[in-house]
Amino acid sequence: MNEPEFLALLRPLATHPAARGLADDTAVLRDLVLTHDMLVEGVHFLPSDPAGDVAWKLLAVNLSDLAAKGATPTGVLMGYALTGDSAWDAAFVAGLAAALAHFGVPLLGGDTVALSAQAQRVLSLTAIGQSALAPARSGAKPGDTLWVTGIIGRAGLGLGGDPAHLSAYRRPTPRLAEGRALAPHVHAMMDVSDGLLIDAQRMAEASGLAVTIHLDAVPLVGDPLAAVTAGDDYELLFAAPVGFVPAVPATAIGGFEPGEGLRLRRDGVAIALPDRLGWLHAPPGH
Amino acid sequence: MNEPEFLALLRPLATHPAARGLADDTAVLRDLVLTHDMLVEGVHFLPSDPAGDVAWKLLAVNLSDLAAKGATPTGVLMGYALTGDSAWDAAFVAGLAAALAHFGVPLLGGDTVALSAQAQRVLSLTAIGQSALAPARSGAKPGDTLWVTGIIGRAGLGLGGDPAHLSAYRRPTPRLAEGRALAPHVHAMMDVSDGLLIDAQRMAEASGLAVTIHLDAVPLVGDPLAAVTAGDDYELLFAAPVGFVPAVPATAIGGFEPGEGLRLRRDGVAIALPDRLGWLHAPPGH
Repeated sequence: MNEPEFLALLRPLATHPAARGLADDTAVLRDLVLTHDMLVEGVHFLPSDPAGDVAWKLLAVNLSDLAAKGATPTGVLMGYALTGDSAWDAAFVAGLAAALAHFGVPLLGGDTVALSAQAQRVLSLTAIGQSALAPARSGAKPGDTLWVTGIIGRAGLGLGGDPAHLSAYRRPTPRLAEGRALAPHVHAMMDVSDGLLIDAQRMAEASGLAVTIHLDAVPLVGDPLAAVTAGDDYELLFAAPVGFVPAVPATAIGGFEPGEGLRLRRDGVAIALPDRLGWLHAPPGH
Repeated sequence: MNEPEFLALLRPLATHPAARGLADDTAVLRDLVLTHDMLVEGVHFLPSDPAGDVAWKLLAVNLSDLAAKGATPTGVLMGYALTGDSAWDAAFVAGLAAALAHFGVPLLGGDTVALSAQAQRVLSLTAIGQSALAPARSGAKPGDTLWVTGIIGRAGLGLGGDPAHLSAYRRPTPRLAEGRALAPHVHAMMDVSDGLLIDAQRMAEASGLAVTIHLDAVPLVGDPLAAVTAGDDYELLFAAPVGFVPAVPATAIGGFEPGEGLRLRRDGVAIALPDRLGWLHAPPGH
């Protein structure tokens, strides 16, 4: 059973409105935003990645989900699996301390377990935040413009070994301030975690619309099709009505219309979608 | 590095009052109670345990932490690791659905990852509840009586293969109603997850007191010293002032006094503590 199949079994259990049908990266309960993301060694990070950077990333990927809901982080609970490497564990805690201090987020609790020394590392974090208005992934309207913050493809180049972009891969910056500034004004918002194309497609699907992306308009580095299908950017993707002027750096890259699916255009001409739209290790909504 | 050593590194990061110094099983944020417990195959459950029972237990152990704070569960987020056994995964989801329905708790979100097929299963759950008054583990006062709900040692017999007590091991019942009835009246409360002796010692230590347990008074099944050091009971252990009459079935088993440490008495005479006070896979406060 793969992750989408497992999710299909789980979805009927998620009947509470706060679960948003598992079609969002977060649960929204009153003014609380809750998210839980895991990192697995060899899947979400490399065995050679420094432990302190893995700690930073574990925090950052969860805070990025909060950022997309305009939330201010309240605290985190961590699930940690010891695998018998004390130096790695100590470096992880040092990196976590630095990351928590950097983002001003307290550790509230969690659990520690011991795995065998040969086991893949499995790390999990639950982040809790507060947001008066938490835009869903599913709120885009026909005619809305699709926007993205920052520059796409940096983390992909970093993962590929480009030293100029290594920090974008290893120590991403969740767009917390940008998310708070945007949340009251946008119709839909999510973070770009698995790739711009796949995440835009997910927003369109959740909103019951089609989305067109103008590849020339996307602010990116490196090969365009590689950039828009690389994950780990942690920029914010949002839908806003025509005429909206974001108060934070962001670029209009496309738009929504009735229908379904993702369409890609370059130099004003429709082009074929790449075979792979992004990373599939983290299926939509879970 | 073992779990207590790892916790010692983490504790300086948990400066927020909601973290309770990682000296509780939960974080308490306004009226919210948050807990995160993991189950590892071969550590917290047997590879031969039915998947549906493992799902039940994953939910129950987290709800038990909420019960000890007098909380009503609001919802859960689950972290699940697929290991390539579709039948197990499907049985797990079916068991989870039944357990969620039984306790009236919705699934709000989570994350799914894929591990290698040889990996130990690693399951995690974050449970969120609401409680106007969440008694800490650390609130016992000198002169308080120590109480326990239910009967101790059933899960230990079930783990040992006694068919009459198998359900107590595989499908424990968190004492949610009892916790809500007790919370406004007790000075300290926690669940008995790792063993009566070790958990009572933890309450005494967190409260800065000594605790004495009268072994004859403990309602138990099987060998007394085995029962009070077996884990997985998920009964509630609480400290209340002399004269308190619980509104739920519970037994007075000892008391707190100034000093430190755990003392055990039998037939009115002090007896030596067993070498092992309980399970150490889940160190205090984490």
